[in-house]
Amino acid sequence: MNKLSHVDNQGNPAMVDVSDKKITLRTALAESRVRLGTEIINLLQNEEIYTKKGPVFQTAIIAGTQGAKKTAELIPFCHPIGLEDCKITIKIDELDAVVTCSARTTAKTGIEMEAITGASIAAITIYDMCKAISHDIEIISTRLLEKTGGKKDFIRNS
Amino acid sequence: MNKLSHVDNQGNPAMVDVSDKKITLRTALAESRVRLGTEIINLLQNEEIYTKKGPVFQTAIIAGTQGAKKTAELIPFCHPIGLEDCKITIKIDELDAVVTCSARTTAKTGIEMEAITGASIAAITIYDMCKAISHDIEIISTRLLEKTGGKKDFIRNS
Amino acid sequence: MNKLSHVDNQGNPAMVDVSDKKITLRTALAESRVRLGTEIINLLQNEEIYTKKGPVFQTAIIAGTQGAKKTAELIPFCHPIGLEDCKITIKIDELDAVVTCSARTTAKTGIEMEAITGASIAAITIYDMCKAISHDIEIISTRLLEKTGGKKDFIRNS
Amino acid sequence: MNKLSHVDNQGNPAMVDVSDKKITLRTALAESRVRLGTEIINLLQNEEIYTKKGPVFQTAIIAGTQGAKKTAELIPFCHPIGLEDCKITIKIDELDAVVTCSARTTAKTGIEMEAITGASIAAITIYDMCKAISHDIEIISTRLLEKTGGKKDFIRNS
Amino acid sequence: MNKLSHVDNQGNPAMVDVSDKKITLRTALAESRVRLGTEIINLLQNEEIYTKKGPVFQTAIIAGTQGAKKTAELIPFCHPIGLEDCKITIKIDELDAVVTCSARTTAKTGIEMEAITGASIAAITIYDMCKAISHDIEIISTRLLEKTGGKKDFIRNS
Amino acid sequence: MNKLSHVDNQGNPAMVDVSDKKITLRTALAESRVRLGTEIINLLQNEEIYTKKGPVFQTAIIAGTQGAKKTAELIPFCHPIGLEDCKITIKIDELDAVVTCSARTTAKTGIEMEAITGASIAAITIYDMCKAISHDIEIISTRLLEKTGGKKDFIRNS
Repeated sequence: MNKLSHVDNQGNPAMVDVSDKKITLRTALAESRVRLGTEIINLLQNEEIYTKKGPVFQTAIIAGTQGAKKTAELIPFCHPIGLEDCKITIKIDELDAVVTCSARTTAKTGIEMEAITGASIAAITIYDMCKAISHDIEIISTRLLEKTGGKKDFIRNS
Repeated sequence: MNKLSHVDNQGNPAMVDVSDKKITLRTALAESRVRLGTEIINLLQNEEIYTKKGPVFQTAIIAGTQGAKKTAELIPFCHPIGLEDCKITIKIDELDAVVTCSARTTAKTGIEMEAITGASIAAITIYDMCKAISHDIEIISTRLLEKTGGKKDFIRNS
Repeated sequence: MNKLSHVDNQGNPAMVDVSDKKITLRTALAESRVRLGTEIINLLQNEEIYTKKGPVFQTAIIAGTQGAKKTAELIPFCHPIGLEDCKITIKIDELDAVVTCSARTTAKTGIEMEAITGASIAAITIYDMCKAISHDIEIISTRLLEKTGGKKDFIRNS
Repeated sequence: MNKLSHVDNQGNPAMVDVSDKKITLRTALAESRVRLGTEIINLLQNEEIYTKKGPVFQTAIIAGTQGAKKTAELIPFCHPIGLEDCKITIKIDELDAVVTCSARTTAKTGIEMEAITGASIAAITIYDMCKAISHDIEIISTRLLEKTGGKKDFIRNS
Repeated sequence: MNKLSHVDNQGNPAMVDVSDKKITLRTALAESRVRLGTEIINLLQNEEIYTKKGPVFQTAIIAGTQGAKKTAELIPFCHPIGLEDCKITIKIDELDAVVTCSARTTAKTGIEMEAITGASIAAITIYDMCKAISHDIEIISTRLLEKTGGKKDFIRNS
Repeated sequence: MNKLSHVDNQGNPAMVDVSDKKITLRTALAESRVRLGTEIINLLQNEEIYTKKGPVFQTAIIAGTQGAKKTAELIPFCHPIGLEDCKITIKIDELDAVVTCSARTTAKTGIEMEAITGASIAAITIYDMCKAISHDIEIISTRLLEKTGGKKDFIRNS
């Protein structure tokens, strides 16, 4: 008996059945950190960067929110769920733009992947808006910070 | 005169006009590295991990390819282009799954964001397939490795 | 204290959190009026116009219904909701085709934007189906006629 | 009085209003049978076929699952519903690949079309993955096998 | 040496690179046959069936056309191509509705899967529009009838 | 002989075949005018309105650009084309926000509907961002201002 005991005997992929699960309020918070580098950070004015394509962070916030809504379309075995809240913030920390995506739903499953996807799409949008200036951009960390309402709550220590 | 000389005078976002550009063969290679941690790496069998949801890397390759095709839908100021090739590979390097996405098109713009998006969606899918086993997963790096065919070729040194 | 007291202090955009709201039956009715002009109206036969691309109003009804289902994908801060009913009608009023879209859901938010979007996409489809005949087409009015089930019911007087 | 008594008097298409219906657990099972022919069946190894594009059935299972989630986007008058389970299996029966798609939701309507769509998209994907080998492929049957939870349960006899 | 000599050595799936291929005019014709049964066929009036949801075939033609445009989104390793023509026709043949989808593009690859997908989505839509009347509906055959412009032309004999 | 001579003899809808057309540079400019009313216009600061959901016009510009890219998905018989430029501007004119959408492609067809769709989705987004303040909002005009590169150039006189 092990973690894999429920694997389909041909090793084929499948969605997990959630029809029996209870509906709960579920929240998740994810973070994606984009290393922008000095050349881009020097363009910072009032917590925003303006490039030829426009304001970077406002565009990223909108793209991230729309990306979070597309999670079940992008990730094959995610269930479609009704996102009830999605807040994306972007703060500067030295040479990095730090994206957080906080998401909520009242549902049988979810919200962790929506938060990860929302933060990631916002980070990729920052990359796209800034790439004409420098190619030293790198998304250096994308991870879950906390989640509640599922089988087990989680808070990252660090 | 500076890099921002073409910014719309209200600071509003906008697509860049590519109608005058020449059509060239354009290639890009991006990498996304997922730190899986010991618990998950121990499940590795013949370069694949089988979880309750199925084979992780094959699922991620398919999701990443479909994600690359959705780049212009996800990233607000990316132009729609006809992806002519998209190859995703996943290799294990110690505790990490290293995703590469190589993309090609014959077009006036593109392919860098398609490679970044394809690698990222594959990485997020690996996260989704493995998250029931451990929450120590982190996408620790997403970056461009090389590109050709645009204004300036790029190869990352390292 | 003013209407804007809840604005994010950096002026960034965000979805509104609806997780605490009560589930209610919500209805909305929107209208979009398309000025077709004499040349196109003269083609009217039994309340339908047949162009090279086919029957205009039936095509518009289908496009509008599918458009209403895409509201949360099109409008950045709309929440995804489960549309339970969507009826589109198109009547002729002198030189105009008058589209109405009536939508319903049992949810924590919504249905006004679904009705507006459904009516608008139907109107744009009428434009597309008829534009080979004349460019005097104009969508002259799109507005909400009534809604119920939200914070405050609304009925337009006129 | 007949089955068509509710038809819109202009004969226009419309979504059915489900807002008054009760929420029930709903299940459906559909099957799609793909005649592969001898040349392709001869490539079978351990219940999978490997072509130039990769493993056929694993790819089809993922595509079918994602297709089932897109049912309301593809079929004009289907309501959007939250798919809670979707299992696709593919078995070989002589010269055929037999796809089944089993789907579940707890909702006011649905799940029959999601099962039919999931099975169909998986079948079309099998076609796409194998078509470089032979054009004798044909999808020879797509049909509902059973459903429960709606107005009337259904089990196919044969 | 065999047909599978180009298979990725880990057996992973991948898109085929078409960047080196020549652009040609490419056409395809696919057919999907829906067995409706007597009860539904009896509702036929002037080559159309009107159900509670509206005119069946017109709705199916629109859904099939929109489905053909979504081929690359639905089928994982299809390349996105610019559909230049898509004609769907539906004829009655005894107890069957026979859908044909004829598609064209000027591109490096494609059009066979667009024709198959367009015919299939039209057939599934016919199913959806009629299923309240009878469950004896079955899609009894979906196949390619002919294609031109690719590596090898194809015409089905029968 | 009349304008309708090419109508399919059953009156069914269909895409127009553009495979024989020449590739040209095509441009279009559309306008959508949103009557905001005094209460909302009074919130104007430096050509932007900040509501609880964030900056109205920047959000609308991004949504409109993404909407223009979705034209072929929303309008049943529009051909998919590669948008090469899309610029959305929003100016205030007394009680109205005036959206313009200028679009370009090098293709066999298009760009008029992309401009109309982009302007409309931006207008609907303005509506959504402001509707909590007042329901006196109305989209009072959506129309083409000019287009070039197709069969016949067009410039609106007024």
